[in-house]
Parts: sequence; structure tokens; C-alpha cells
Amino acid sequence: MSAHDVNEQTGVDMLKARRSTTLALDTIRSFLHNGEDQWETRRKVTQILERDAVFDKARREFMSRTERYTRGMALTNRVYELQELHSWTQHETSIAIATLDEQLPISLHNVAFQPVFMLQASPPLLAKYSDLIATKGILGCYLQTELGHGTNVSRLETTATFIPETQEFEIHSPTTTSSKWWIGGLGKTATHGVVQAKLILPGGKDFGPHLFFVQLRSMHDHKVLPGIKIGDIGPKALGGFSPTDNGFAVFDHVRIPKEHMLSKFAQVTRDGEYVKPPHAKLSYGGMLYIRANMVTSGGWLMAKAATVAIRYATVRRQGEIGPDGLERQIITYPSVYYRILPILSHAYVFIRLGKTLTKAFDTLAGNLSRGDTSLLAEMHAITSGLKVVVSSTGVQDLEIARRSMGGHGYSAFAGLGRLYADYLPSVTYEGDNFVLDQQVVRAALKSYRSLFSESKESTTQSLLPSSRYLRLLIPPTRSLPSFTEDDFRSPTTSILLLEWRAALIVEKNARTVDDPDASINQRVAKAVTEAFIAAQIGEIINTLGSTGMTESEQIIVGKVYLLYLVTTVEAGLVDLLSFNILNSSGGSRDPTRSVRMTIKKLCTELLPEAIGLSDAFGFTDWELDSALGVYDGKVYEALWKCVQSEPLNQTEVPTAYEESIKPMLLRGQRQARPKL
Amino acid sequence: MSAHDVNEQTGVDMLKARRSTTLALDTIRSFLHNGEDQWETRRKVTQILERDAVFDKARREFMSRTERYTRGMALTNRVYELQELHSWTQHETSIAIATLDEQLPISLHNVAFQPVFMLQASPPLLAKYSDLIATKGILGCYLQTELGHGTNVSRLETTATFIPETQEFEIHSPTTTSSKWWIGGLGKTATHGVVQAKLILPGGKDFGPHLFFVQLRSMHDHKVLPGIKIGDIGPKALGGFSPTDNGFAVFDHVRIPKEHMLSKFAQVTRDGEYVKPPHAKLSYGGMLYIRANMVTSGGWLMAKAATVAIRYATVRRQGEIGPDGLERQIITYPSVYYRILPILSHAYVFIRLGKTLTKAFDTLAGNLSRGDTSLLAEMHAITSGLKVVVSSTGVQDLEIARRSMGGHGYSAFAGLGRLYADYLPSVTYEGDNFVLDQQVVRAALKSYRSLFSESKESTTQSLLPSSRYLRLLIPPTRSLPSFTEDDFRSPTTSILLLEWRAALIVEKNARTVDDPDASINQRVAKAVTEAFIAAQIGEIINTLGSTGMTESEQIIVGKVYLLYLVTTVEAGLVDLLSFNILNSSGGSRDPTRSVRMTIKKLCTELLPEAIGLSDAFGFTDWELDSALGVYDGKVYEALWKCVQSEPLNQTEVPTAYEESIKPMLLRGQRQARPKL
Ligand SMILES: Cc1cc2nc3c(=O)[nH]c(=O)nc-3n(C[C@H](O)[C@H](O)[C@H](O)COP(=O)(O)OP(=O)(O)OC[C@H]3O[C@@H](n4cnc5c(N)ncnc54)[C@H](O)[C@@H]3O)c2cc1C
Ligand SMILES: Cc1cc2nc3c(=O)[nH]c(=O)nc-3n(C[C@H](O)[C@H](O)[C@H](O)COP(=O)(O)OP(=O)(O)OC[C@H]3O[C@@H](n4cnc5c(N)ncnc54)[C@H](O)[C@@H]3O)c2cc1C
Repeated sequence: MSAHDVNEQTGVDMLKARRSTTLALDTIRSFLHNGEDQWETRRKVTQILERDAVFDKARREFMSRTERYTRGMALTNRVYELQELHSWTQHETSIAIATLDEQLPISLHNVAFQPVFMLQASPPLLAKYSDLIATKGILGCYLQTELGHGTNVSRLETTATFIPETQEFEIHSPTTTSSKWWIGGLGKTATHGVVQAKLILPGGKDFGPHLFFVQLRSMHDHKVLPGIKIGDIGPKALGGFSPTDNGFAVFDHVRIPKEHMLSKFAQVTRDGEYVKPPHAKLSYGGMLYIRANMVTSGGWLMAKAATVAIRYATVRRQGEIGPDGLERQIITYPSVYYRILPILSHAYVFIRLGKTLTKAFDTLAGNLSRGDTSLLAEMHAITSGLKVVVSSTGVQDLEIARRSMGGHGYSAFAGLGRLYADYLPSVTYEGDNFVLDQQVVRAALKSYRSLFSESKESTTQSLLPSSRYLRLLIPPTRSLPSFTEDDFRSPTTSILLLEWRAALIVEKNARTVDDPDASINQRVAKAVTEAFIAAQIGEIINTLGSTGMTESEQIIVGKVYLLYLVTTVEAGLVDLLSFNILNSSGGSRDPTRSVRMTIKKLCTELLPEAIGLSDAFGFTDWELDSALGVYDGKVYEALWKCVQSEPLNQTEVPTAYEESIKPMLLRGQRQARPKL
Repeated sequence: MSAHDVNEQTGVDMLKARRSTTLALDTIRSFLHNGEDQWETRRKVTQILERDAVFDKARREFMSRTERYTRGMALTNRVYELQELHSWTQHETSIAIATLDEQLPISLHNVAFQPVFMLQASPPLLAKYSDLIATKGILGCYLQTELGHGTNVSRLETTATFIPETQEFEIHSPTTTSSKWWIGGLGKTATHGVVQAKLILPGGKDFGPHLFFVQLRSMHDHKVLPGIKIGDIGPKALGGFSPTDNGFAVFDHVRIPKEHMLSKFAQVTRDGEYVKPPHAKLSYGGMLYIRANMVTSGGWLMAKAATVAIRYATVRRQGEIGPDGLERQIITYPSVYYRILPILSHAYVFIRLGKTLTKAFDTLAGNLSRGDTSLLAEMHAITSGLKVVVSSTGVQDLEIARRSMGGHGYSAFAGLGRLYADYLPSVTYEGDNFVLDQQVVRAALKSYRSLFSESKESTTQSLLPSSRYLRLLIPPTRSLPSFTEDDFRSPTTSILLLEWRAALIVEKNARTVDDPDASINQRVAKAVTEAFIAAQIGEIINTLGSTGMTESEQIIVGKVYLLYLVTTVEAGLVDLLSFNILNSSGGSRDPTRSVRMTIKKLCTELLPEAIGLSDAFGFTDWELDSALGVYDGKVYEALWKCVQSEPLNQTEVPTAYEESIKPMLLRGQRQARPKL
């Protein structure tokens, strides 16, 4: 043994780092978890799962996809068993499901099938099925996407033809490309589904996509019902979504009762007349709900990435030798902290932003149920933009965190690869990000045009949060601010810069709309959404005083939020410079340097608090399931332990030896011999 | 059946696109493959593999890791069997290995173990083993990295203590963290290895890491030799590197003969005196060779990404309805072609650049073998920078291409996820990119300082290619150019801009070196390497005339290279604007718009040739193994076919039904009943 033990040092370093934090863990945790009560509920549920052998994760990385699916269903069944046993509320059960860290078929029931059904089924259908759906007495999925169509819902090919004679609909897949595809929970699990199909009424007139409630499997033996062909669509990229049976379905003239059309809004009369919905967009609520939730869950995913990377970077020492004769903790290298501390700030932002959104959504849902759609457009613009930013940032952060850990980050036991694989499709589902960008831009242009078509007085005040930045375009405020390096220590500087950027890029876009460049939608949508987020962060910082934090805690947490703002400014420098909002021609001062030096200083000020700030998320080792993110910092022992159960290590000589290795060696030896 | 069949249309669209290309396929293919001969060799080898059942890929996506390893060894054995059968040259065999599209343990033998041994073993050791190594009569691996150390080789803990009494070395792992770790081919395959260990000579003096040739397994029964503990380190993130048995090894006072030290350069005398190598860096050749090869292989990987994405985007129709009543081919959307055409240009650049580098490496290797190290520093700076750019660009391109394909891109059958997972660690191995950046910056600063410490006349001429951009800093040339939109059609504009950017950022870095911001190394390294690449592209474009292309072909291929340059300028806009190389204060003209509109125009001009330009890479369907990248464009039929063999589809009712689904349904029905 050498005098200094690299392995023992890890524990020492973690302990020191934990001691260096000046934050009160429970205050910050309450802030993130929306109160001590919420945190306690979460802890109670998590502890039950953690102690239950069914939820053990030790063999997960070695399983085939079929095993992962089978295990996923066992986890699900156990959660509902525990729900009954412990009389969990719905909220507690959903905490349990979320905590499992698995993409499960049941999510599609809970997040897509159930809300769509509850929102759009007619009262008689609700009476018959809503309890069964709530208790999982039937299991559902949401069948919209087809092999040939995803984004463009209006061109779906599946038909639902009304048959007045029998008062039925006939669901049919007329072409190869009309097969339903990608449907989560369909492949092996669901007994029922909500199907998007073109409504065809007598005379052959096509009324476009509508929703139909269809039984898929027998409640007796789970066999697929006659006329339907169902299967799993196979493994996903990177091993993601393994436990989910994304499936396909082909319908061959399948009859369902007329009542099974989800007809709360649009309806068909007994003799096949179409009855229009009162408002074309009344049914959008469910989609907005999912997107609002994605902000919160994306935030917690970033929190996991930040926790694991910060812990590992605290105990991994590599490279230059410090005054203590030890190599530096890698978190002290600028190129490391510059990568991982911003992830921490993203988590703090999206977790809090998610709460605001959920509240806003509740208001909206109340309005919608009264037929009031006034907030719908605003909420749609905001959630579209945020969905894009949270999903693309989250995917990127998971990889930045993984990469920051060097070689060991590429081990499956590091845990971040798995999260990445599962989260990756979030940039595609619930609206492909590049398509959603177009909608954000459209909303922004609409606000811009209506602002300049009306009298300015009235409009500035009527600007909704999503387009408040447009106020800057109204004279006489239109003089660009100028900044010194110190100014970047104040959140208002970055907020104003980001709002100016949004305002000017929308204005520019409006002017070049007939001859746009090829990435304009992406840049405008980003600028607009970032201006909204920046303003929200301003609010969060302003209200830190009412969170029970001490003044010094408020300063530290304030810096986390400031880091988000200034790094967003850095990422937006091209716009800021090309619009002359920031400019370098005015003297020797390079404004990009002010921005970057502020980031560096913020990071170094936050470093001693990094472990505290990430401990406050409150993840247990079971939840993180990462050998590099263990609470006690003993990463090498954790890796060593994981490795021992690798299936290849259960025999000394692999079967490949007799089959392939030995023949190769013998051939080589034969070929080499003559030359010896 | 509806009148228009979406599935049939795919074949029609592909045919049309293929007809629209004006390029002669074989000319462009020769250009990319370095001559028709090379292409023919490649085709001959690939055809043999493709027709051999051993190389069938149909079940690959369904295999467990152990199965992937076993299959990998079978492929390897078969390749060497075929080598003998067809009397393949080494070059042909290495084409076969590369074509397999698998990360195989044999690569570590071929790329790390063998070259290091050949370059550094003493003549007697060479005489004994070089034939056996060449014929795979023994199988090797390269044991450098340890659980506790990767980047910092000087702190490796494994020891090799010289025992004068027996003229042996004792290889020993003194700590947990000294276990060798991540070693490809070690876990289950290798019989021998080259071990990095600290040389300890009598008296206990530590001479730092040296290389030792160590037998690991019995040649009789493949069992691990006494005193050594070996195992596989487990699955990798995202299922990457599945067929490779990255392993660990712990040595317990293992004795090897003195001759097994690789002592071509440094040596130990019989009584334990150290004999220094003539030049500390003579042994670097191998590393440079690997990095030079990474440029070529990275280019071919981008070529695969581009081929798959371009083909799918050509036949996928979605969204807006065009004049023909059909939805638009997605490749016609700016937000799609803006993402995928640059990948095509990256492939064209790195494939050609790889050839230049390989030639330069051959010159270097000749020099080194004569003890001439004059070119080493230059080659080191260039390959470090290019390794970073090619690996990070490649990883990013694979994901951009995958994402551009929407939901179907997330199917394992799309094929790009697998390539991503395998390529991802290239940003870490052979030098972590963030660490390599430091070396690029160090070299650049050294050139900068030496330039200004000498008389300008002599130095401008002596500037080596890696720092030729520094010439711009010598007065009187120091007046910044100014540009109009049309100028961006000429490659020299972008090249000059990128060289100016490199020169000014190095100058700026030299001035702020005492108080740098946190990402400066990454920005400087990127700017410097991009200036080098830009200049090389200038060369490539200038010599297109001598490649057998017609004038119109030269124009088209020239646009591909120009697209690389202008998109690189776009990505470098922050620097260009903040250094006032481009500026927007000079009038109403926004220079960023010129750059972006040039990109858009180049893309639209290239669109009709995109299928031709990617067909020219010459990949077969077997090589791409992508349902979305099939040559005939019939992507829906290909997906459908893949899905049928999914293991979950082999039974109608999954085992999870009795175990978990049924209990859940029954519980739910029981809970719902009272309320009915
Ligand atoms: C993991 C996963 C789970 C899913 N679960 C379900 C489910 O349970 N139920 C269900 O119904 N569906 C599900 N889906 C399908 C998902 O909703 C679709 O993948 C998504 O809507 C995107 O559509 P697409 O795949 O057809 O992409 P496409 O629309 O084909 O997009 C392909 C490319 O074209 C571009 N593009 C498309 N249209 C336009 C346009 N108008 N303008 C510019 N660019 C355009 C896109 O940006 C993208 O780059 C799931 C998908 C995934 C990946
Ligand atoms: C798939 C794969 C195959 C491999 N095969 C082999 C093999 O066959 N044989 C073998 O010997 N090894 C192998 N390796 C190991 C590989 O060489 C190391 O992973 C690599 O050298 C990086 O070292 P590390 O993992 O210790 O990262 P670390 O050095 O621990 O890096 C961790 C983080 O710290 C940062 N960092 C480290 N040092 C510095 C510094 N001085 N300044 C600033 N930042 C720093 C890095 O940027 C990174 O973000 C393999 C690795 C992988 C992933």
C-alpha cells in the first residue's frame, strides 16, 4: 500500500465538501419540493419502495428487453398493490411511479389515455368506464401516430366510417402506412385504446380525425380481438424505453358501438349528421397539461445529472498536483465546472418554473371546463416554447454531465446513459421541437403585428407574459442600454438584454418574413422563450425573501439563478452583438469578456456550495442508481461492486473460446510457425 | 386502398431523386475512395462478407451483451479464416474488419497492442513474438488506464519492480485504484498484454511509467495465469461497445523476465541501472497514428449518418401540401436541410483530410525510425486538434441526423442510435477532448510567442501549416478585410475570416493568459483547428481540377466544401463579431444575414444532388443496416419487416400477463365494482 490511498481519499473529499456548505439543507429542500410536507410525503413513499425487493435495481443493466418489459409490469403491479395496502392517495401513487425511474406502459394510461378519455368522453361512456379506468380495471393506450404520419395529424389514414343501419362505426386501416405505430402500451399490455381516425359519414364525406374508444384485447384471456393485428415495434435506439411496449395495430373493418365515439365536443346524430364542437380547440387541454408537466420532470432530470456529475467531480482527482501534494479535484478545473454548474442552475430554474406552470394550468382547466378559452392561446404559446427548451436542454445536459466524468461516465453503472436514452425522444414526442418552434414564432409574430396595428397605450398594458418583451419596441423607451462588467452581477441586466434580443429578433423576422434564412424559426423561438424564462427568473429571485431562507442563503440561491441568466446571455451573444445590443466597437472593452468573467466568478463562488445545493434535491442512492453519484463519495468501491455481477464474469473461460478464439489462435500459430 | 399510396410513393420519390442528380457516380466515388482500384478492392471484400451467413445482422438488435460478445468473436474468427481462404492482403483484411460495423476486441490488438509492441519492443523480443502477433497466434490488449487514473499517466499506481537476483520484473497492483480498468479485449479475450507500470529500480527509485509485455492467460486452456485477477467491467452506457470485453486486471506480485520490458528506447541494465531514451517523445508515433486514423474513420461515419438521413428525408413526406397534392418531402423544409446537408459536407471534408494526414504520418514515421523528431511537435498539434474536432462533430452529427428523422429515428432499426452509442466514447479515449484542447492552445501560444521573439521576415516563412494563420498578425497586412454578401460565394472569404479569427483569439489569449475565462481553451483550440481545416479545404477545392471531374461536377463538389466553410463561419460568429472582423455597425447591412442566406442558397442548390452525393459513398444496405436508409427508399416496408422478428412478437400473450397484468386488472375491477 502506498502512503496515500486514492480510494480512501474519495470519502474524505466528500465529507469535507459536505462540511463546507453553509446552506441549511432542509430550507433549500423545502424550497425545491414546495414545502416540507411535500418532501415528507415523497420521502415516505420512496422509503417504502426502496425497502421492497421488487424494486431492486441490481440486475437491471444486464437484462434483455423482454426481461425489462416483464420487470416493468411487475413494478407497476406492485405499486398498485402498495397503493391499496398503504391507502396511498393518487398523488402518492404518482410520486411512486415517477420515482421508479423507468419508462412504463402505465404512463401512457395515466398521462394520455385517461385524461383524453375523461376530458372528451360523453357522460354515458364516462359513467360506464371512468371508474374502471381510474382503478386500472382496464388498461389503455393512445393511438394517434401511424407508420406514415406523426406531425401532420390531418393526414392520418385510419378511417372510422359510420354505419347508420347498425348505429356503429367501422374502424379500418386501409393502407400499409395507416398502421398505428409507436403507441406506448399497445404492443403487449393495453386492453383498450383511444384511436384517432378520420370520421367518414354517409355519402363518404370525410370530417377529419376524431377520437374513438376501442377495445383491443379480450378481458378474459388477453388475446387480441378478431379483426385487429397488434405487435411490438421492436427495440429503441440506445436501449431507451425498454420496458415500454410501443406497438403497432392494424384494423380490419372493426365494428364499435356509436357511443364509443368520444363525443363530448363533436358528435354524430343517429342518422349520420355531424354536430360541430362549440370551440375547435376545447380539446387541447390535455396536450398542454402534458407539456406543463414536462417542465417539472425535465427539471428533476437535470437535478439528477447535476447531482451525479458534481459528486463525482468532487471526489475524482486527476492531473495537476496541488499544494497538498494531491492531484486536483476535477471540479476545480474551469473546463469542468463551466460544464456542470450551469446544469445545476437549469434544474433550479425548471423545477420552480414547473410549479408556476402547473398553477397556471389549473386556472386554465377551470376556465376551459366553463367553455372559456381566452387563456388558451397564451398558454399554448408558452408551453410550446418551454417544451422545446426544457427537452433540448435536458438531453444536452445529461450528455454534458456524462461526458464530464471521462471514461467512467461511459460505464452503464454511471447511470446517466440510461437517463439519456429514455429522455432522448422527448425532443420528438408531444410535438417535434422543430415543428413547435414554428408555432412559437407564429404566436410571436401575431403579437407583434397586433401591437403595431393598435394604439400603443392600450396594447402595452394588454401584453400577456409571453410577449411582454415587445413593450421595448414602443418609443420612447427604444434606446439601447449600455453595460459595464459589474452590471452583470444584477439579474436585471441579463433579463433586459434577453428581452431586447427577443424584441429585435421578432422585429427583424417580421421584416424578412418573405425571404427568411434557414434557421430563423429556431433562433426566434429560442429568443422569445428565453426572454419569458428570464422574466420568470426575475420573479423567482424577487420572491426568495418569502421562502424561509436566510439572507446568505438567498444570496447563494440567487447566484444559481443568476448563473442561468448570464450563461443564457453568453449563448445568445451572436444575436446581442449583431443587433448591436452589446457592442465591441465602442472602446477597448470587450463585452463578451465581461459576460464570461462574470460566469467564471459566479462558478467559483458557488463551488463550495455545490454539494449542498445538489444534496438539497434529496435523491437517495437507490433513486440515482449511479456508482459515480453515491452519497458517500466512495465511487471506486461502488464501481468495483457493480462489476462483479456482470454475467460475463460468472465463468472464467467464455463459450467463445472453443468456438472462435481457440481456432483463431491455432490458425495464427500455424501461420507463424514456418517463419520462426 | 386510397387513390394515393404513401408507401408506394417512397419508391417513386427515391427513383426521381436519383434521376435528378447530374453527377457521374463513379467519378465522385473514386474521388472519395482514392481511386477506382481502392473502391474495387473495397467492393470485392464487402461482397464476400455480405454473402456469408456469419455476417448476417438480422438478429443483432435483439441480442444480450454476452451474445453480442460471442457473435463478435465469431465474426472475427471468420474474417481471418476468409483472409487465409482468399489470400487477402493486410489492407484487405483491415477493410473487412472496418466494414463489419462492430466494436471488436481485435481492434485493440490491431490498433494499440500490435503497433506499440512493434515500435517499442527490443529486437530479441520482436524476433520471438512479432510473427505470432501479426498472425493472431497470440491475442493482445493495451493496459494503461487504471480505476483511479486515465488522463494523468504519470500518476499510474501499478509497479514494475526490478529484481536483480532473478533478472525479473515484478508487476504489482498495490491499491484498489491501481486495478487496470477499461482495457479493451482484456476481460475475456486477450492472451497477452502490454502493461504501463511505474519502473522501480533497486533502492526504490521510481522512474515513472514504462511498458511491459505480460502473458495473461494460459495458451493451453485460456485460464487466467496465477497471481492475476481479470474480469469484464460490465455493460457500457447506451449499449455501446457491447461486443468488446473492456476489462480489469489486478496483479499480485507477478514475475516476468527482464527481456519483457519494451526496451527499444529506455532500458535497464543487468544490475538495475536506468538507460535513458535518446528522445523523450520517440514513442509518440503510435498515438499520432491512431489519431490520424480517427479523422478518416470519423469522416466515413458522418457519411453513413448523411446517407441515412438524406435518403429518409427524401422519401418521408409530412405536413404542407404542395402543388401536386402531396405533402412535402421533409428534405425540402429549411429546418431539415439546414440540419442534414452540413453533415454531408463534414463527411466530404474529413474523408479527404484523412488522406492528407495519413500521407503526412507516413513521412513522419519514416523520419522517426531514423531518430528524426523534427516534425513531431507539428504533427502532434495538428492531430490533437483534429481528433477533438472530428470526434465531437461526429458524435453531434450522428444525433442531428437521427433527430431529423422524427419518431422513426428513435427506432433501433433506424441504425443511427447504434453508431452513436459506439462512437460516443471517442470524445474521451485517445485523449479526453477537453484535455487535448489545452495542448492545442499550448502549441498555438508557443508559435505565437516565438513569432514575436524573432525577426518577422524569417519567421513568416518558417510558419508551419498548423500556425500559418499567424502570418496575419505581421504588419503591414494587419488591416481587416470587409465583405459583401456575394463574397461568401468564394471560399477565400471564409478561409480568411477563419484565419483572422484564429490569429486574433490567440493574440487575445496571450494577453489574458493570467486571468482567463472558463471556456477560453475550448474556444481557442476550436478556432485554431478550424483555421487549419479551412486552409486545407482551400487546397482541396483548388485541386478538384485534377480529379477527373467535369467542370460542372467540380462546381457541385466545390459547393459541398464551401458549405463546410460558411457553416463554420456561422458557428464562429461570436468571435468574428466581438473581434470586429465582421461588424454590423457599419451600415444597414447585417453581416450575419449574408452568411446565413449564403448557407440557405448553397443548400437549395445542392438539394437536387443530395442523393447522388451520398450514393457516391457507396454503402450497401447490409453496411448501413438501417430500415430508414435503404437504397430503394422503401422505408415503410423495411421497418415493417424488421419489426416482425421482435422477440416479444413471438407469443401473443406475454408472460407478464399471468404474473402482473391480470392481477392488476382484477384488482382494479374489484375496486371499481362497488362504485358501479
Ligand atoms: C418514444 C416515443 C413514444 C411515442 N408514443 C406515442 C404514443 O403513445 N401514441 C402516439 O400516438 N404516438 C406516439 N409517438 C409518436 C410521436 O407522437 C411522433 O413521433 C411525433 O409526433 C413526431 O412525428 P413523426 O415521428 O411522424 O415525425 P415527422 O413528422 O415525420 O418528422 C420528421 C422530420 O420532419 C420534420 N417536419 C415534419 N413536419 C414538418 C413541418 N411541417 N415543417 C418543418 N419540418 C417538419 C420534423 O422536424 C422532423 O425533423 C411516440 C414516439 C416516440 C419516439
Ligand atoms: C470505450 C473505452 C475504451 C477504452 N479502452 C482503453 C484501452 O484499451 N486501454 C486503456 O489503457 N485505456 C482505455 N480506455 C481509457 C481511456 O483511455 C480513458 O478513459 C481516457 O484516457 C480518459 O481518462 P479518464 O477516463 O481517467 O478521465 P479523467 O482524466 O478522470 O477525466 C475526467 C474529467 O476530468 C477532466 N480532466 C482530467 N484531467 C484534467 C486536466 N489536467 N485539466 C482539465 N481537466 C481535466 C476531463 O476533461 C474530464 O472531464 C478506454 C476508455 C473508454 C471509454
